[in-house]
Amino acid sequence: MRTIELRGREVMLIDQTALPEKVKFVRCRSAEDVAEAIRSMRIRGAPALAAAAGMAIALTAMRSRARTRGNLLREIRRSAKLIESTRPTAVNLFVGVRRVMEAVESAGNVEEMRRAAVEEAKRIAEEDVETNVKIGENGARLLRDGDTVMTHCNAGALATVDYGTALGVIRAAWRSGKKVSVIACETRPLLQGARLTAWELKRDGIPVTVITDNMAGAVMRSERISAVIVGADRIAANGDTANKIGTYSLAVLAKEHGVPFYVAAPTSTIDMSVGKGEDIPIEHRSPDEVRFIGGKRVVPDGVPVMNPAFDVTPAWLISAIITERGVVRPGELKKLFRS
Amino acid sequence: MRTIELRGREVMLIDQTALPEKVKFVRCRSAEDVAEAIRSMRIRGAPALAAAAGMAIALTAMRSRARTRGNLLREIRRSAKLIESTRPTAVNLFVGVRRVMEAVESAGNVEEMRRAAVEEAKRIAEEDVETNVKIGENGARLLRDGDTVMTHCNAGALATVDYGTALGVIRAAWRSGKKVSVIACETRPLLQGARLTAWELKRDGIPVTVITDNMAGAVMRSERISAVIVGADRIAANGDTANKIGTYSLAVLAKEHGVPFYVAAPTSTIDMSVGKGEDIPIEHRSPDEVRFIGGKRVVPDGVPVMNPAFDVTPAWLISAIITERGVVRPGELKKLFRS
Repeated sequence: MRTIELRGREVMLIDQTALPEKVKFVRCRSAEDVAEAIRSMRIRGAPALAAAAGMAIALTAMRSRARTRGNLLREIRRSAKLIESTRPTAVNLFVGVRRVMEAVESAGNVEEMRRAAVEEAKRIAEEDVETNVKIGENGARLLRDGDTVMTHCNAGALATVDYGTALGVIRAAWRSGKKVSVIACETRPLLQGARLTAWELKRDGIPVTVITDNMAGAVMRSERISAVIVGADRIAANGDTANKIGTYSLAVLAKEHGVPFYVAAPTSTIDMSVGKGEDIPIEHRSPDEVRFIGGKRVVPDGVPVMNPAFDVTPAWLISAIITERGVVRPGELKKLFRS
Repeated sequence: MRTIELRGREVMLIDQTALPEKVKFVRCRSAEDVAEAIRSMRIRGAPALAAAAGMAIALTAMRSRARTRGNLLREIRRSAKLIESTRPTAVNLFVGVRRVMEAVESAGNVEEMRRAAVEEAKRIAEEDVETNVKIGENGARLLRDGDTVMTHCNAGALATVDYGTALGVIRAAWRSGKKVSVIACETRPLLQGARLTAWELKRDGIPVTVITDNMAGAVMRSERISAVIVGADRIAANGDTANKIGTYSLAVLAKEHGVPFYVAAPTSTIDMSVGKGEDIPIEHRSPDEVRFIGGKRVVPDGVPVMNPAFDVTPAWLISAIITERGVVRPGELKKLFRS
């Protein structure tokens, strides 16, 4: 099962807001539909957003009635801007847009442009799965039989096209015969750990236990946690990593307890144009995500809340970054880009 | 407004499970009613539980038809056992039971026993308010105009008979003219920070902002947090402190960011019979508190969860303990008990 797929002139994606109660698919017919799905987090996770961004532009290319190169390019650029405006932090979304734009721009006539958009969008999705399998292989070497891994949010199949990054490492270890188990932090406000990570690991038969985010310290103190593995939304050139809010707290707690802290991400999540973490734009989402849970008010009316969707973990708290090209220390990212 | 009050032959208490949506009172006519209110957390907070425990036994004494000292004692001891079985961690509950039991046991006849029970139960409640005002005065000296204090769970008026411990310190600073503001961690699973702390500070006009628990690290890193102040459910002789789950994570984060970490509690919360934190019994509550929020399932069916209600913060992470008898380092608790 793919999280997102381009089928004919439609994009089909799993509505992640309906999980774990319902496995529901959303059908997107336009870049506008995809933009809505991204904004409302029916699809989320940096690598999945690269695929969604690419497919959104492919939809515009396929459905456009433009007959000239110029007109088609204008429509496609409008879709690109729309997609880029949905969420600011995950760099993969911008990478997905740029890849399809470049393919389109280097194609000749309108027909070739359409074909290039579709091919590149599909290529992003296929490459993502291959990349994740390699991340899994590289990361699985860091785990041993019997290990317990703590993770945050969802860096799984649902955050990618399939297989996952952090959960890809766990899957690869599991498939190689290592009996690993997982502690999933629930990840307020939108509970991706409780709802999504627990759901997909249970489907795979990998033992998973859910904790509230505030239990992480106590659990690290009382249980043997072998490693913390998380995904990433954007990694700066110096190794500072933006990821779901709460990741930074986990990294501090891991250091305090001598637990290795790994980030698993494709090299496309590394943004060498951003020098350090404080230059990564952090999205602040609607306060109602904190104020209401499942329609129920939990914060008194009129009381302000904060809702940054991400935080930045400084490189010095990260033991290693696990990519499809190898496992490196956060200070050595340049190694990954030598040809 | 008192959180809990003995009125005639009834105990009236605010139903804290209904806040912040409704201010609803529960009427308890028996120790059984009070036990139910404690188990279901209609009333919670260590000092409030001392008052509830005392009043529960007073209800039994008042309503008993026993005509002999022996029969009344038997009934009262049964109620004492019932109350002691409700929740294991907060020592104040046991202190409340013991105080009323001792008053009853040292009284002469049945009528005197009844009177002694009621008087002692009322005394516990009155002393609690006086104690909290003194804790507030002692603690307010640690805060300056413009300070921002982070707190966890609810150590406020609702956790006591009135005024609060950690929030008592904030109230005292505010009333002395220091413009302090508060960051309240929401405190999963039962959201006492979002629901209760925000509610009572808003009523007092003290600025409060709610964050999800996993934001604490990022907020300490990006904002100026002057201090973390929390309450306590039981403090061991060496200063190790059991408090609401998540307190330990906050203490580690506070140390990492050079933020002073204070525990505000009455000396009755200090249990000199327990040497160190690992000997404090920790309550584990129903997994459904984590699995469901407001009736909505957030963890897939069949996935296990953890739900310890408390964790233990080791003494070395605590800057000072603020009591009604003064502010001491956690290693100096004996000083408080010299006559």
